[in-house]
Amino acid sequence: MAGQKQLFLGTFIHSISLDELEYLHDTALCVDENGKIVAIEKDCDQKKAEDVLYPKLGWAAAEVTVSACKDGQFFFPGFIDTHLHASQYPNVGIFGKSTLLDWLNKYTFPLEASLKDIDKAHAVYGRCIRKTLAHGTTTAAYYATVDVPSTNLLADLCLAAGQRALVGRVCMDQLSPSWYRDESPAAAIAATRASIAHIAKIDPSGDIVRPVLTPRFAPSCSAELMRSLGDLHAETGLPVQTHISENRGEVTLVRELFPSVADTYAGVYDAFGLLTDKTILAHAIHLEEAEAELIRRRGAKVSHCPCSNSAITSGAARVRWLLGKGIDVGLGTDMSGGYSPSVLEAARLASLVSRHVAMGGDEAAKLSAEEVLHLATRGGARVVGMGGRLGGFEVGMEWDAQLVALGHIAGDGGLVDGEDTNVDVFGWESWEDRVAKWLYNGDDRNTRKVWVKGRLVHERK
Amino acid sequence: MAGQKQLFLGTFIHSISLDELEYLHDTALCVDENGKIVAIEKDCDQKKAEDVLYPKLGWAAAEVTVSACKDGQFFFPGFIDTHLHASQYPNVGIFGKSTLLDWLNKYTFPLEASLKDIDKAHAVYGRCIRKTLAHGTTTAAYYATVDVPSTNLLADLCLAAGQRALVGRVCMDQLSPSWYRDESPAAAIAATRASIAHIAKIDPSGDIVRPVLTPRFAPSCSAELMRSLGDLHAETGLPVQTHISENRGEVTLVRELFPSVADTYAGVYDAFGLLTDKTILAHAIHLEEAEAELIRRRGAKVSHCPCSNSAITSGAARVRWLLGKGIDVGLGTDMSGGYSPSVLEAARLASLVSRHVAMGGDEAAKLSAEEVLHLATRGGARVVGMGGRLGGFEVGMEWDAQLVALGHIAGDGGLVDGEDTNVDVFGWESWEDRVAKWLYNGDDRNTRKVWVKGRLVHERK
Repeated sequence: MAGQKQLFLGTFIHSISLDELEYLHDTALCVDENGKIVAIEKDCDQKKAEDVLYPKLGWAAAEVTVSACKDGQFFFPGFIDTHLHASQYPNVGIFGKSTLLDWLNKYTFPLEASLKDIDKAHAVYGRCIRKTLAHGTTTAAYYATVDVPSTNLLADLCLAAGQRALVGRVCMDQLSPSWYRDESPAAAIAATRASIAHIAKIDPSGDIVRPVLTPRFAPSCSAELMRSLGDLHAETGLPVQTHISENRGEVTLVRELFPSVADTYAGVYDAFGLLTDKTILAHAIHLEEAEAELIRRRGAKVSHCPCSNSAITSGAARVRWLLGKGIDVGLGTDMSGGYSPSVLEAARLASLVSRHVAMGGDEAAKLSAEEVLHLATRGGARVVGMGGRLGGFEVGMEWDAQLVALGHIAGDGGLVDGEDTNVDVFGWESWEDRVAKWLYNGDDRNTRKVWVKGRLVHERK
Repeated sequence: MAGQKQLFLGTFIHSISLDELEYLHDTALCVDENGKIVAIEKDCDQKKAEDVLYPKLGWAAAEVTVSACKDGQFFFPGFIDTHLHASQYPNVGIFGKSTLLDWLNKYTFPLEASLKDIDKAHAVYGRCIRKTLAHGTTTAAYYATVDVPSTNLLADLCLAAGQRALVGRVCMDQLSPSWYRDESPAAAIAATRASIAHIAKIDPSGDIVRPVLTPRFAPSCSAELMRSLGDLHAETGLPVQTHISENRGEVTLVRELFPSVADTYAGVYDAFGLLTDKTILAHAIHLEEAEAELIRRRGAKVSHCPCSNSAITSGAARVRWLLGKGIDVGLGTDMSGGYSPSVLEAARLASLVSRHVAMGGDEAAKLSAEEVLHLATRGGARVVGMGGRLGGFEVGMEWDAQLVALGHIAGDGGLVDGEDTNVDVFGWESWEDRVAKWLYNGDDRNTRKVWVKGRLVHERK
């Protein structure tokens, strides 16, 4: 469907502010050949669209593909996964009782290193992309591995599948196993440049895939490597992604490793020119006040990864506190620290974890369904540098969307029709309640179709 | 298949102690006409079973139905949901930012009261039973409502569907809306007796459905009602289910309501003869030391409901602490305080919530995959008074089981065959890792067949 004019009809639900979803019923939405939303009209059916919208757009009915959602279905913006390791997908759910630093050595480095085998990388990356698309992830900020050819393969596969992606070759030259690290800062930069060049070649526009500078995290990067990456960031303007303040032991380690660089973890990245408004910081759990203030001043973004933070016992991030400071926050599945490929599951956990923060005394910490769905869409768009382009339904934004269908229950407790999903609607629920039901029990079965930039990239058979 | 001799072949996985799963491969298991496991033999295929087991059992091959699991599939004990409100099923996921006492008034009492409409009750209970069976719940401890006819309908539907159930008519005669409560203690007891009589009539053996005395919780029951229920408990020997110490406000309320009865919440139940080794206490979050000690002495059981406790911000139950005292603990979905019909989800959350308890400083609080699956099966069996009969694969126990299938991934990232589920196995994972993957990403799609007492009660088409 990419390259075609399209008309979508039915119910559209999207976030319009942190705590508000807008429900647009009986609405028509036009998408042009470039995947851009060019018209949205309420109280509009196909006939009215043809009579009123098409003339304004200079469209002829014969050249337009029409997709109408059925009663009870709705269109929702595609999810934006602001932090995940494609290379760790096979390990989802496998973490035992580990915490960050032993988890890396026991589970993560061996798997990542093994993806030097390009056939294995093909199976893993191919499945990861299919799986996340099926869960409605239209944009993903991926970490690959240290290896250039398989990192480039990940970019190739994203482009072919039509999933928007930031693809990062992982930089790490210290405190990592000898069999899995960059040989030197210079080698890391050369490999990073090679991957950037490949991605720029396959998608010169950067519309679907683009490179992202990826220092793994401060403990595994030498000062020289981080300084060089900061220079590369300044030179290229490419985004940066890394981890920060996930685990207390890690925070202590950073303090020990860079005593003369800065007082805080964020300060270390800042000192090397890696803390800017194009930086995505995953986790940000144990930040100090001044550090959060620095992050805000620099305009850096936070990827909140609740599934991961609970699973490997990292801590409970104070999302309300971050938002209150004016820091942009999105959601990350953080596979496989996080156990799930689903941003909807991350949203669910963000809600639950915020309640655990509230149990600690701060009642205001609780995030509502509207708020976590905001983080999953518009919030995420800002985090990956695509605010205003993705995450909502507005004229001028792009059509990255999913069609959501819930199950409708008959009088005898059976299903009215359609696929048996884990979300049951009895018929008396408000739309707000239906969305809450989807948030708490929904999965990939409810995501029937997925579009990126106007192209249909997933359809549930 | 009930009433038939059956042979099951393949891999059987079950809990044999709190922290250990046993993996029985290439194993044969025989189930007699009464649904009882009569033989288990390792390294045994169909031919050997016919040659060696059948003669011992006096079986002829022609009269035996054979079910073999495919490569990669496994049999697992059915899940035991030790606490859920069938009447609240339509509200799963709908709780906003409420906590227990406002949640009851805003969401719960209106829905429960509305199930006096028997057609509505039929749709809700019918769906709840299908849904929980599909998620592998072979035994459920249900709360219905105050209404007798619809409570009886729930028992009828469980019996017809073949789901083992404790079915409780809810008793509540104070601090509840005038339009939803028992008129008097005497009326509550009469209604309870009527429901008990009905259930005893439809299943005199009590093998599938049995009644359970159900004082909602101390705040909504007068002293006279609780005393009468204590007398009924002593008279009938029927099990008791109720809530305890879920929410701090509730704990304070109990203290205010029963100042002369006892010092603690548990003490109140004890004073009325409701705290015995047949009592199921849901939640038990904010217990005092002495109170937990009293529960242990009485042999009362705890239903841990992590999905509910996080969702309505009740608190994080200290499961390790309860287990350390020697108190039996099982898992409850607690729909719809809990948002999910799945015991597997409850097990997942039990693992995650235990990590939040660990974040508070008690590293030992973390529950392993093996431990939460123990709670979901053998632990739950003890909680509902069926320890030694259900929850594991042993000669003399009953065949309440599920057949679990995971997805197998090919070299190109596609699926080898079978249904596309949310659990992807690449082929190199150990059996322990496969179980962890199932625990963290599994859902009803992975539960292909479900048996109760030998009868096939659910099959995924």
